[in-house]
Amino acid sequence: MFVIDKNNKLPLYIQLYKEIKKDIIANYKSGDKLHSIRKIASLYNVSKITVESAYSQLVVEGYIESYPKSGYIVTDMTNINSDPNKIQTITKIQKTEDYLYDFFPARLDNKSFPLKLWKRLLTKVIDNSLNLGSYPCGQGEYGLRTQIAKYINEFRGVKCQANQIVICNGFADSMGLLAKIIKKDYDTLAIENPGYQLTSNVFDSFGYKIKKVGIDNNGLNLDALNNSNANLVYITPSHQFPTGVSMPISNRLKLIQWAEKRNGLIIEDDYDSELRYSSRPIPSLQGLDNHDRVVFIGTFSKSLSPAIRVSYMVLPNHLLPLYQQSFDFDISRVSIITQKTLEKFISDGHWDRHLRKIRTLNRKKHDLMKKLLLDKLGNSLKIESQGGGLSILINPSVEFNWTLLKQLSSKKRIKLYFDKEISGGDWEAIHMGFGGLEEHEIESAINIFSEIWKQCILS
Amino acid sequence: MFVIDKNNKLPLYIQLYKEIKKDIIANYKSGDKLHSIRKIASLYNVSKITVESAYSQLVVEGYIESYPKSGYIVTDMTNINSDPNKIQTITKIQKTEDYLYDFFPARLDNKSFPLKLWKRLLTKVIDNSLNLGSYPCGQGEYGLRTQIAKYINEFRGVKCQANQIVICNGFADSMGLLAKIIKKDYDTLAIENPGYQLTSNVFDSFGYKIKKVGIDNNGLNLDALNNSNANLVYITPSHQFPTGVSMPISNRLKLIQWAEKRNGLIIEDDYDSELRYSSRPIPSLQGLDNHDRVVFIGTFSKSLSPAIRVSYMVLPNHLLPLYQQSFDFDISRVSIITQKTLEKFISDGHWDRHLRKIRTLNRKKHDLMKKLLLDKLGNSLKIESQGGGLSILINPSVEFNWTLLKQLSSKKRIKLYFDKEISGGDWEAIHMGFGGLEEHEIESAINIFSEIWKQCILS
Repeated sequence: MFVIDKNNKLPLYIQLYKEIKKDIIANYKSGDKLHSIRKIASLYNVSKITVESAYSQLVVEGYIESYPKSGYIVTDMTNINSDPNKIQTITKIQKTEDYLYDFFPARLDNKSFPLKLWKRLLTKVIDNSLNLGSYPCGQGEYGLRTQIAKYINEFRGVKCQANQIVICNGFADSMGLLAKIIKKDYDTLAIENPGYQLTSNVFDSFGYKIKKVGIDNNGLNLDALNNSNANLVYITPSHQFPTGVSMPISNRLKLIQWAEKRNGLIIEDDYDSELRYSSRPIPSLQGLDNHDRVVFIGTFSKSLSPAIRVSYMVLPNHLLPLYQQSFDFDISRVSIITQKTLEKFISDGHWDRHLRKIRTLNRKKHDLMKKLLLDKLGNSLKIESQGGGLSILINPSVEFNWTLLKQLSSKKRIKLYFDKEISGGDWEAIHMGFGGLEEHEIESAINIFSEIWKQCILS
Repeated sequence: MFVIDKNNKLPLYIQLYKEIKKDIIANYKSGDKLHSIRKIASLYNVSKITVESAYSQLVVEGYIESYPKSGYIVTDMTNINSDPNKIQTITKIQKTEDYLYDFFPARLDNKSFPLKLWKRLLTKVIDNSLNLGSYPCGQGEYGLRTQIAKYINEFRGVKCQANQIVICNGFADSMGLLAKIIKKDYDTLAIENPGYQLTSNVFDSFGYKIKKVGIDNNGLNLDALNNSNANLVYITPSHQFPTGVSMPISNRLKLIQWAEKRNGLIIEDDYDSELRYSSRPIPSLQGLDNHDRVVFIGTFSKSLSPAIRVSYMVLPNHLLPLYQQSFDFDISRVSIITQKTLEKFISDGHWDRHLRKIRTLNRKKHDLMKKLLLDKLGNSLKIESQGGGLSILINPSVEFNWTLLKQLSSKKRIKLYFDKEISGGDWEAIHMGFGGLEEHEIESAINIFSEIWKQCILS
């Protein structure tokens, strides 16, 4: 029999409530009457108030009902399982593979994050002026939006006001929000092929039709776009993903004209334009547009950290009322602490300095990897894309055993990324990410890679 | 004429590039030839390398093309706007209204956030072990998921493993993710009426049909649910939003049986169950389910802070493969710094202490507001819901001028929340939030409110 344990941390009434609940489940049926409060109190040697409290909790949860004069009656509990502690089957869904070197194409060197500075700024922004009891502004903190507007105006040529900016927690979040608010006006998305598959995934999940449009040396093929009959297009004009092509000014203007004529919309994904090593960043397409037809998407993932989860979207003015009427207008997507810290980071001038630092750092890595690849494999390899971002794209220039490459790299614990898997198209190239590797690691990694590569050449 | 300014911060070649670009846009047409590099160099008194750099940037951006022997030719730029600095029309979309007292129903007192402690934990978790250069685990940090699994097991009776938990950035985010991954198997969502409108909004945006199902004294009406023919239902069983009813055990069991029979799914939104003032928290419905049919949704917004943006979702095991195959599996939704801080907050025992503190604090406010309302307006007002959460719901018990109430409260700068506006249904009640007000503010606010209320009584 149950004995109340007066040394147990749990209040007496809760111990009792748990015990009676177990008893009801195991031994009572619907309509059965419980013992009176007086009886239980004397049985367990506890006060009547303790029993009353235990019984009221059982009433609140609906196990028993209280009837004046009749006392406490067990309710209908057909189907309750007699073993409420049974643990469900466990499916392990995560495994982490351990690679010697991982050429992930969108990773930064952990050391490049300004850890100490960030910590200092964090502790500065956390004070009583922060309202942590309320929902923050859905669109993002006004101060941060002002800083971003200033930055993208100066460095990316984007023409916008803070009220056009929405702070999001990553590219997919920005795309999801956009897909939601323009759904009534657009049903088909044209997207570069090869292109960034995540974009198709997001728009597909909202029920959009996806039309893949080919690219050429000038980026998106505009004739093919015209033929697609889509009025909405997603492009990466300054550094096409994955081929690295940039769209020349003439085509940018034609594209804007296309959008103007059709009342269409251009989604400009400016994912890594900060990182260009052989020229200055190319000004945004948004800045050329005078007809309010461009949505500009930026992120801090490629140049500051993918782990702080901050991106942003610049809406054209005509979409602002739509956004404002959508339920998302009230939903803040990023911690106010992160937003305030980032705002201070930019306004205090650290962002400019950081960009210069990270550009130099990654230019060095880029140049090193390019040199090593050409020195070691120049005869059998061609470079498809280089000069920007966090990876170099390569292909064999000779007959090549791709299957063996995959087998050997896996055996040697080298993680490679293939464009067919990333972009889901027909075009193939290997993404050789350098951002996440330190310089000495690049040397060792390319050494092993070259040995593998040579074995895959079919001569 | 343009003169190079050697004191300008900008490198010479960029000043020159900007100048030539302006010149091209204003004075050149497609096919025109630019001056030779030598000519420009002597014209502006700069080195040939400076001119070359300026020209190559213009080539990269596609303004000009370089032809061997012919030099630099302007490309086709029909349609370029001659005023690239023109600022677009500004639509002001934000206004902050200034209220004397705001009865927002889901706000916490700013002072209740453990600011100093949070700051201390933040600085502890920010060290070199944090990888800020990589994308964090899409599902959320394993450590945080483990802490949450432990907490909801002990305090909410939820049976789950860390691998079933997904960390999200708020309720809408959790709902959006769920709506995405189960879309192939469900097309209709049954939802409580009155109920939480945000849920309908999210599912509607993914193309689900919404069926409103009435509620009674036991919460969701199960017969009406059966008749709705939906296989997917959203409920707030422990503290129905907005009526505050809790679903008794017998109905919980029937609901689980309903889901089992139809291969259906129950979304259990446990939004504020930590805050109950007149009984213990009611154990989750999820914990009663042995057939893997319940998705459990929790949040830190109601009991810690809505500004840090952390919520979580417990998926039943059979949905894990679906989630794993979805593109969302790779997308992390919350800053790793926030996640690590929260993990430490829970594992160090602060969360338990915080919950006790915040429960006591809000119980006091709840009791105070309830007492004041009844003392002052007991004859003309009935309480629809009390005893939990961050608000008390009231209605007039006499003939009443609602329009006047809205007019007068606006005039006196008191912000009231009406259920018809929040839930979008036919049921009406006023949500009197106390969480965001301090005790002395509750007194003053209710004083003003009472004066307004009395004027609205039609006698």
